[in-house]
Amino acid sequence: MPAKSEFELIDHYFNRPAPAGMLGVGDDCALLTVRAGCELAVSTDMLIESRHFLPGVDPQSLGHKALAVNLSDLAAMGARPLACTLALGLPHIDERWLEGFSKGFHALAADAGCPLLGGDTTCSPHGIVLSITVMGELRPAHALRRSGAREGDDIWVSGTLGAAYVALLLLQGRLPADPARLRASQPAMDWPQPRLALGQALGGVAHAAIDISDGLLQDLGHILEQSHCAARLSLDALPAHPTLEGLEPRVRQEALLGGGDVYELCFTAQPLRREQIQALGHRLGIPLARIGTITRGSGIRVFDARGNDVPVTLRGFDHFAAQSPAPDTSRGST
Amino acid sequence: MPAKSEFELIDHYFNRPAPAGMLGVGDDCALLTVRAGCELAVSTDMLIESRHFLPGVDPQSLGHKALAVNLSDLAAMGARPLACTLALGLPHIDERWLEGFSKGFHALAADAGCPLLGGDTTCSPHGIVLSITVMGELRPAHALRRSGAREGDDIWVSGTLGAAYVALLLLQGRLPADPARLRASQPAMDWPQPRLALGQALGGVAHAAIDISDGLLQDLGHILEQSHCAARLSLDALPAHPTLEGLEPRVRQEALLGGGDVYELCFTAQPLRREQIQALGHRLGIPLARIGTITRGSGIRVFDARGNDVPVTLRGFDHFAAQSPAPDTSRGST
Repeated sequence: MPAKSEFELIDHYFNRPAPAGMLGVGDDCALLTVRAGCELAVSTDMLIESRHFLPGVDPQSLGHKALAVNLSDLAAMGARPLACTLALGLPHIDERWLEGFSKGFHALAADAGCPLLGGDTTCSPHGIVLSITVMGELRPAHALRRSGAREGDDIWVSGTLGAAYVALLLLQGRLPADPARLRASQPAMDWPQPRLALGQALGGVAHAAIDISDGLLQDLGHILEQSHCAARLSLDALPAHPTLEGLEPRVRQEALLGGGDVYELCFTAQPLRREQIQALGHRLGIPLARIGTITRGSGIRVFDARGNDVPVTLRGFDHFAAQSPAPDTSRGST
Repeated sequence: MPAKSEFELIDHYFNRPAPAGMLGVGDDCALLTVRAGCELAVSTDMLIESRHFLPGVDPQSLGHKALAVNLSDLAAMGARPLACTLALGLPHIDERWLEGFSKGFHALAADAGCPLLGGDTTCSPHGIVLSITVMGELRPAHALRRSGAREGDDIWVSGTLGAAYVALLLLQGRLPADPARLRASQPAMDWPQPRLALGQALGGVAHAAIDISDGLLQDLGHILEQSHCAARLSLDALPAHPTLEGLEPRVRQEALLGGGDVYELCFTAQPLRREQIQALGHRLGIPLARIGTITRGSGIRVFDARGNDVPVTLRGFDHFAAQSPAPDTSRGST
């Protein structure tokens, strides 16, 4: 069998038949339908090699994660995925890489009901660049905007916090080598699960939501700014990933409050919704922790078990500072 | 006045209030509405410095062109622009660059009714990377698919051909220096005008359409492949840009048949539509040239004024071949 050409390879790994009612790869545009009464929700991210992911990262997990972090934005809005596009810059054509990447990408796309309808592939001499756009639909009244939090709301977070941050510290040698801890924490970093079902179920229930990509304090901070209010958090209520056990308190606290790359949802809702929300968590099999309260004013205060203020700094993430690969995918990105 | 932070600068240049009924930059997703009875048309491109544009290119024309080449895909589908997103990777924050780029981008966005609703800005250490996604709407029956051409259709092209190619040859030193010719040809390269009004007006009139980004032969070839038919073109009927005058015949022919970066529409329609199409061109002030016929079979034959076959080669554009910056933005990109 003759070797496949560049086009044939890309077609082979990325072009899938479009679902009924949609037009996929191969025309000037992809075509899809948004249901009557629904709005279109759109989010775009760009991921750059050595910046957002390490050179040599497993292409299958990269394919999964690149789509997952975008789907997480749909989840945080309460939207149901419709379709996505992928713009891909590659230094050269590596069939093994394409095979792994497309496998991870398509598996999550199928799982999430978010088919790849189009895109662009081109040469990027200095490293891999990915840009994904996801589109979803939602009923306007169910949109989980960042501006919806109200004084008196409970603050909730799904799943657990800190594992991806611990994996990053271990991989960067900023924590002493600990193979067991790395094994336990790295899946959270490489295979994040967007909380799509939870986000959609919270439409009409929660007041505001965001996905935690840059760290709890920073992302909750976006809700507070846009909702013009403040927050009190209980340090002990934060749902720590088991891999945080045995870490010194300073690192543990950093992982919980500042650790990014989490892709859990942080949301606010009236206290009268507590039972409904807990029931929702049980139904979906997702732990939901009540971690604090929305208050008047501005800023975030964190309290320990004895009611003492925990000093925290809410630093802005600087995307242009020198740094190792780390999650900086969410500068108010939409 | 204190210097602006990175975030403030990006906000200043890119965040515009969203039009009524839309949610713009600053939440997890942008929100917009597609009219009842319309489908959503989506197209994505990625542009990489030194590959698709020269380092040091005027940022204002880059901002214009990056959006224009995407809007051209909406035009080729017959869609009306709704909104766009921009993912931007920059080696560093250069306020002058941001100012120029955003000026060119927003001016065309306003002109085309395609507001920037969201995006992502990040650090790209090795050069500028842009990825734009445009969204538009159209009535399904009016979609100008590549697969719609029929035997006996006329083949049409809007505007003129070849100027951007001549500018590229001059800039690359592949033609002897000729400042007057460069002045006359470079605007076509730097400031392409997407044929949005024409594309929308052709819905329900033309059978198939594509925008010419990789060159007439190659792009018409995509229509033929997907429509399972062939074409005969009349070399003398091709609408040459005035800047092609005085070039040697070989270069002129190359510019007309193979020159990319054109962003005119090539479309097919039944002969009984001729008067209607000419009237449309007059109304919109766009020259429309009838350049050939769709026939049975496969491939493209080009004839000169004496009815002799002109030998042409239809080469595929290899995005991964070593090359100078040139238009390779449209690998079946949607």
